[in-house]
Amino acid sequence: MRQDPPVPAGEMLKLLDELAAFSAPGPGVTRLLYTPEWCGVQHFLQERMTGLGLEVRMDQVGNVYGRLAGSEASDKVILTGSHIDTVVNGGRYDGAYGIAAAVTALHYLQATFGQPLRTLEVVSFCEEEGSRFPLTFWGSGHVTGLYSGSEGLDCADAEGITMGAAMAACGLGGIAVSGAEAAAGLEGSYRFKDSPVRSDVAAYVELHIEQGIILERTSHQIGVVQAIVGQRRYLVKVCGTANHAGTTPMGLRQDALAGSAEMLLALERSAVAEGDPLVATTGRLEVSPGTPNVIPGEVQFTLDIRHSEAGMLERFCAAILAEFAELSGRRGLTLAVQQQLDTTPAPMDQELCEALEEICLGQGKSFRSMVSGAGHDAQLFAALCPAAMIFVPSRGGISHSPGEYSSPEELTAGLEVLTALLYRLAYTEN
Amino acid sequence: MRQDPPVPAGEMLKLLDELAAFSAPGPGVTRLLYTPEWCGVQHFLQERMTGLGLEVRMDQVGNVYGRLAGSEASDKVILTGSHIDTVVNGGRYDGAYGIAAAVTALHYLQATFGQPLRTLEVVSFCEEEGSRFPLTFWGSGHVTGLYSGSEGLDCADAEGITMGAAMAACGLGGIAVSGAEAAAGLEGSYRFKDSPVRSDVAAYVELHIEQGIILERTSHQIGVVQAIVGQRRYLVKVCGTANHAGTTPMGLRQDALAGSAEMLLALERSAVAEGDPLVATTGRLEVSPGTPNVIPGEVQFTLDIRHSEAGMLERFCAAILAEFAELSGRRGLTLAVQQQLDTTPAPMDQELCEALEEICLGQGKSFRSMVSGAGHDAQLFAALCPAAMIFVPSRGGISHSPGEYSSPEELTAGLEVLTALLYRLAYTEN
Repeated sequence: MRQDPPVPAGEMLKLLDELAAFSAPGPGVTRLLYTPEWCGVQHFLQERMTGLGLEVRMDQVGNVYGRLAGSEASDKVILTGSHIDTVVNGGRYDGAYGIAAAVTALHYLQATFGQPLRTLEVVSFCEEEGSRFPLTFWGSGHVTGLYSGSEGLDCADAEGITMGAAMAACGLGGIAVSGAEAAAGLEGSYRFKDSPVRSDVAAYVELHIEQGIILERTSHQIGVVQAIVGQRRYLVKVCGTANHAGTTPMGLRQDALAGSAEMLLALERSAVAEGDPLVATTGRLEVSPGTPNVIPGEVQFTLDIRHSEAGMLERFCAAILAEFAELSGRRGLTLAVQQQLDTTPAPMDQELCEALEEICLGQGKSFRSMVSGAGHDAQLFAALCPAAMIFVPSRGGISHSPGEYSSPEELTAGLEVLTALLYRLAYTEN
Repeated sequence: MRQDPPVPAGEMLKLLDELAAFSAPGPGVTRLLYTPEWCGVQHFLQERMTGLGLEVRMDQVGNVYGRLAGSEASDKVILTGSHIDTVVNGGRYDGAYGIAAAVTALHYLQATFGQPLRTLEVVSFCEEEGSRFPLTFWGSGHVTGLYSGSEGLDCADAEGITMGAAMAACGLGGIAVSGAEAAAGLEGSYRFKDSPVRSDVAAYVELHIEQGIILERTSHQIGVVQAIVGQRRYLVKVCGTANHAGTTPMGLRQDALAGSAEMLLALERSAVAEGDPLVATTGRLEVSPGTPNVIPGEVQFTLDIRHSEAGMLERFCAAILAEFAELSGRRGLTLAVQQQLDTTPAPMDQELCEALEEICLGQGKSFRSMVSGAGHDAQLFAALCPAAMIFVPSRGGISHSPGEYSSPEELTAGLEVLTALLYRLAYTEN
């Protein structure tokens, strides 16, 4: 495509600015699901894509699509995009970048090459972060079968607003069961109407900031994601005996915090020994009673363990939990472990990965095969269709923060690679 | 005293029951400073002691005294008692036992032996626990010079009620500065009126439950306290870098919690190596941001370190803080340590300790010399006059809990020893 006109990076950067303007007050961008700023941005995107000649629609949960129909007699779609929601005080790039680039790519491809052979579709998923309601991937999960609909019924945000009420406030149908359905006892079996699972997706491609420091540290422009890690989350509860910090000799203590400290160090040691891409983290830890002069009687902490291979993840988790149990027994502590999350690793499509590498080579861009340690909408499509992810560097690895940053040059490189892949998928006889 | 009538343990046990009835609702006993139940119990004690023929008075902060004047022409007083306040949902024995036993002992001594040579005084200190206002030893501190008065001016409880208002609600003069004094800018230099420091105390004797498990584990009836430990408290702040738990490889982390865990284990290891009576505890630890999928960027934790010898305490604290600094540097973390408390060890009077041992031997009671790992009112008197403490076993070492328990036999043994010591001090030519 070197002979073709340059991809209009300025258009994408301007669109990113426009999207960032839809935010609740405060530092960075705050655009939680079904809030006024969320409604505003999804309507803005619909208008913008309509203006660019795409067929626009919004589905039942608020995902927005812009369609550029192909000339072939097929209902298959090349889908590309990301999520439009952010965390509280998040950045301008996480999610929004993949949407702004996709809109720009489709505009450029149509303007430059006309109608594609295969249908191209941009998607702006309503939600991925889980920042307002206790559900993640509400957008991509809706169209991939992760959710049936009833999951949203019991959901409320921190202020007690139910998801149904929040949807209604955005002019969406909501997911509340009608009085008649409720009378018929259908709450538990509520389903999305018009089965929303998309069996028409031939490929899903997502462009995203890395949210990590690997590309920056290794000076690569593009990350070609080979797999999105599987993730296990556990809540670990360690019980000892709360006692007086002054009158209980060291030898007569069952200190739940000292025991937990030993577990955290064992976790770190094992994770370092296992090596990349395994990561293991305790992000939350709470001590009870939490008084300076009382030996902690109970500690609860979280475990977040990730790996790109299911077998390795399983083996590591089993080994570390066995070590925790041994350690608890030795200290006279009791241990209770509750699994809270178990997502399997999602391999990306190998042909698409190879295509991305060829494109980078052709465009003279440095690239690196890598694992995504963060979850992304693409992982839900991996089971349905060939899926691919393209990463660009994140300055300092910072994301979910107003300090999130990728340079215009880095963002442009990602757009160029995405555009070339979409061209291959939709315009060539592949 | 073997030929004398038995000490009336039943009277003391009944008085303990009566005191326990003054409690806010809820499990155990809750009798916070200057609350209605606190007012009730101090007035009850005044009436009871008046009925027993003691001269009764209440001082400016609400300490209650019952005086049995001696026949010698001396203003010196043998003072015995403890504190009347409890923690929230505390037990029936912590503090109250020392008062009930002292009242019973004076009643018995007067009834059996008549007027003493030296004046005996029971004290029910208004406060020791620091459970309502952020001050401890408000009662004994008032009469030993720990406080000048102005410390209470800025104090408020968790509901925002100032100490002055709480005192006024109990009919006490309060410590608020008058309008005229405030106009004269005297708030900061406010002093208790009628300098309350008691230079008339010839000896202070306190009977208390152990609040630990040493007497129970070693099967001793009486603990003869040699020293009350000195105590250092620190707030330690460890800063690393908050980062994404999925996208940050193990080798690129500055995890404030993993670093803190290593410090806690080092603390435990050093304390065990140092041996009794050193104890070191982290009772509170807080993680920020405290999200399961974010590497902790900041951890704050408390240190509570105690020893009965000032030099050993100083040396241990310096060594462990140096180890923390070394450890932080190695992990790329920053460390900030703030000292919050520094009390020096308080040795008890050796002659009184020997007298207690003789009494135990004479009464056929098993006893053990020990260090008090908890703070007590007696530690403030140690600098002013000979001071002694007698411990009785606490079941399971439990205190500050509705489960606090010492058996009637154990309580009676303590009463017998206290009574004998008071007899020696007030009735014999010692």
